[in-house]
Amino acid sequence: MKKTINLFVCAIFYFANGFTQEAVFGGRSILSPEVNMDGSVIFRLYAPKAIKVELTGDFLTNVNVQTPMGEMEQAIFVEMKEDKNGIWSYTTEKLSPELYSYKFRVDGMDYLDPSNVYMCRDIASYANIFIVKKESGDKGYLYSVNEVPHGDVNKVWYDSPTLKMKRRMTVYTPAGYDKGTPYPVLYLLHGAGGDENAWITLGRAVQIMDNLIASGKVIPMIVVMPNGNTNSQAAPGEWSKGMYRPSFMEHEASKAIASMDESFPDIVTYIESHYHTLKGKENRAICGLSMGGGHSFATTKRYPDMFNYVGLFSAAIFLGGNDPKKTNMEMLESDPILEKEIAGLFEAAPKLYWIAIGKKDFLYKSNEDYRKYLDAKGYNYEYMETDGGHIWRNWRIYLTLFAQKIFQ
Amino acid sequence: MKKTINLFVCAIFYFANGFTQEAVFGGRSILSPEVNMDGSVIFRLYAPKAIKVELTGDFLTNVNVQTPMGEMEQAIFVEMKEDKNGIWSYTTEKLSPELYSYKFRVDGMDYLDPSNVYMCRDIASYANIFIVKKESGDKGYLYSVNEVPHGDVNKVWYDSPTLKMKRRMTVYTPAGYDKGTPYPVLYLLHGAGGDENAWITLGRAVQIMDNLIASGKVIPMIVVMPNGNTNSQAAPGEWSKGMYRPSFMEHEASKAIASMDESFPDIVTYIESHYHTLKGKENRAICGLSMGGGHSFATTKRYPDMFNYVGLFSAAIFLGGNDPKKTNMEMLESDPILEKEIAGLFEAAPKLYWIAIGKKDFLYKSNEDYRKYLDAKGYNYEYMETDGGHIWRNWRIYLTLFAQKIFQ
Repeated sequence: MKKTINLFVCAIFYFANGFTQEAVFGGRSILSPEVNMDGSVIFRLYAPKAIKVELTGDFLTNVNVQTPMGEMEQAIFVEMKEDKNGIWSYTTEKLSPELYSYKFRVDGMDYLDPSNVYMCRDIASYANIFIVKKESGDKGYLYSVNEVPHGDVNKVWYDSPTLKMKRRMTVYTPAGYDKGTPYPVLYLLHGAGGDENAWITLGRAVQIMDNLIASGKVIPMIVVMPNGNTNSQAAPGEWSKGMYRPSFMEHEASKAIASMDESFPDIVTYIESHYHTLKGKENRAICGLSMGGGHSFATTKRYPDMFNYVGLFSAAIFLGGNDPKKTNMEMLESDPILEKEIAGLFEAAPKLYWIAIGKKDFLYKSNEDYRKYLDAKGYNYEYMETDGGHIWRNWRIYLTLFAQKIFQ
Repeated sequence: MKKTINLFVCAIFYFANGFTQEAVFGGRSILSPEVNMDGSVIFRLYAPKAIKVELTGDFLTNVNVQTPMGEMEQAIFVEMKEDKNGIWSYTTEKLSPELYSYKFRVDGMDYLDPSNVYMCRDIASYANIFIVKKESGDKGYLYSVNEVPHGDVNKVWYDSPTLKMKRRMTVYTPAGYDKGTPYPVLYLLHGAGGDENAWITLGRAVQIMDNLIASGKVIPMIVVMPNGNTNSQAAPGEWSKGMYRPSFMEHEASKAIASMDESFPDIVTYIESHYHTLKGKENRAICGLSMGGGHSFATTKRYPDMFNYVGLFSAAIFLGGNDPKKTNMEMLESDPILEKEIAGLFEAAPKLYWIAIGKKDFLYKSNEDYRKYLDAKGYNYEYMETDGGHIWRNWRIYLTLFAQKIFQ
C-alpha cells in the first residue's frame, strides 16, 4: 500500500489543517522548544498581532512570594522579543538535564505552545513539557524513553469491597514480565489533585523504571499506582461522573465510606491474585508523594506487617488535624493511640523507612517534627534532604533513589 | 488522614495556582462548556483585554471550501459576545447527542478552553471535546463512561520480527476477562496521522465497547489497536525518537522494511500467545479507518484465511498509486495480480465484508469504483452509507455498527 498513499496524504493534510490550524509560518513549521546541544533552549511563538508575549517555566529564576503558609517559590515571567515576521522568541541559559515545564502569556492570557504537543495536566490546567538530556544516566536520560526494553502499562479495574466500588489503577509490569517469573511489587501513591495517571505523566515513572531496570540499578518489579481519592472511581473523565472539572479537593469532594489506608488491602489482594507476584512483606514496598506520603504513613502504621520498605516523599503528615496550633510533635507526644501505632510499626522492623523532603518544602517543619519524634524514640529510618520545594522535580528524584534501595 | 488535610490543601491550592493559573473570575471558576438539558451548550472565556473572540467547532454550520481533492466541508467561526466583566460567551442551538470538538480564537490566535481539561490531539494539534448525552443508548451515551462494567486497557510492547523491532500497541480486554474464558479478537486500525492511541481517544473505542457489551448488543471480545506506521515503534513521545512533532506523513517519514499487511501476523501471534483468545479465522475480525481501512484491505487479500470479518471504514484504497489519472476501476481491470488476490480473498468466503463511507467523503469515488468491481465479479459484501465526510463522527458510528455484526 505504501506507494499508493501520497495523493491521499496530500488531501487529508489539507483537510486536517483546515480545522486544527497547526503552528505554521510561511509554509514551514515553527520549531519550539528547540533544545540546543549546550542545554540552552529557544522558545518561539508566531503571534503577529500580540503586543506583549511572555514566557514562564520552572527553569526560570524563582522569586519568593508570601502565601498563607509562609514564603513559597514562584517562577517569574520573562518577556519574549518579536522579529519582523511576528515570531516571538526567547533563549534560556544553559539548562542542566531535567524535565521542564513552561507556557506562554500573550497579552495577559496564558497560552500553550502550539508547536509542542507534549504537555501534562496538573490538577485543572496544562503546561508544556520538554526534556534536556546530555548523557546516559543523567536526569534527562532517566526521564526519557530510550532504546531499552520497555515494560507494559495497564489501566485495570479492581474491586474494592471496603470502598464498595470498582476502582481504576495503573499497573506497570517490567520488560520480560511474560516469562512468568514472580516479581516484587512497589505501590506508588500520588498527591492531592492527582490520580492514577499522575505518576506516569509528570512523574515519568514508566521511563524511570524502564531505564533503571535496564541499567541493572533496580531489580525488575511491578509498580502499582492506585487512585488515592477514595470518593472517586478513577481519574477525571474516566468514570461515570462525566467530564467534570478536576479539583485539588477531589479526595474530599464528598464523603468516602473508608480511608485510603483502610482500603489498601483490597489493592494488594487484587494485584497478588492477578499478577505474577512474590508474596509476603519482604516483597512489598510502598511510597508516595505529599498526600500519598501521608497515605504511606497511615497505611504502614495500620498494617505494620504488610510492607518492608516505606518511602515518605514530601509527606503530608499533619497529625494536628485542622488546628494549625498543634504541631506534629505536640500530637505525637500527647496521643497514646498514635504513639502505640507508630511503636507497632517499628516493632515490626521495616527494612527501610525512608523520609525525603526539599529544604524549601512548606511541609519541612511537620516532617522535621516527625523525625525528631522518631529520633527521640530511637526508631530506625533514613533521611534524604534535597534543594527546592514541593515539586515534581524532587519526587522524580525520590522515586529514582528509593527504587534503588528496595528488594535488594 | 482525612480530617488532617484541610490546611494542607489550602496551602497547596495556593501554590498550584501560582504556576498553573486556572480559569477563575472573581474567585469562582468559569464553567465552560455548559451543556444544558435541552442540548444547547454555552461556551465562556474570560478575556478582558481581547478585541475579538471567536468559536469554532464541528457542531457549527459547515461551509464548502475548495481543496486539491475537490470541495470539502469546513466548520465556520462564530463571534462570541463580551459582558461587562470581560467574559465572552456563545450559546449554540440544541445539539443532538454526540461527542463534539471545539476551540476558541482570540484576536487571531487559536486558543484552547482553559476551563475544560478534556481535549484530544489530532495529528499535531489539540481541540477541546465535550459530549451531549440525552438518554441511554444514544450516541452521547455510547461515547461516555457509564455505570457499567469496564474493560481494562493495556499498552503492551510486542516483538515484530518482520519489522525487526519491538512495537507498542493498545489492547482492550472486556470486563470479566480475568475469569479465563477465551475471547474472539477484533483488530482495529487507525488512519494516517494516528497511532495506537487514536481509537481510545477520539475514537472512544473503550467506551463504545464497554457500553455495547454491557447492553448485550456485542459479545465480549478483545480489541487490539496496533500502530500502523511501520517505521515507528510507538506513538509520538512513547519511543526513543524523543518528543518529536507528530506528522501526517509519519507512516512514510522514513523507509520501513516491510508493510503493515506483511507484518500483521506478528501482531496476531503475540496476541494469541499472551491473551485468552479463541483461535482460527472465525474468531478474528479486522477493520480500520482511512489508512487503516487500506491496511485491512491489504492484509485480508494477502492472508485470506486469517479473518472472517472485514470492515473498511472510509478506506484509503488507491490502487492507482501516485497517478491520479488511474482510477481504482482501471487498476482493478488491468492488474492481474490484484485481480487474483481479490479473487483469492472472496474464494475464502469471509462471513462479512463490510464497506462504509460518508456521502461527502473525498474517498467516496475510489470506494465506489471498488464496489462496482466487486458487484461486477459477484463478490459478496455489505455496504453502509452515511452523511458527512472523512470524520471521526462517522468512524465511531462504523465501529458501533460493525462490532454488532461480528462473532454472532
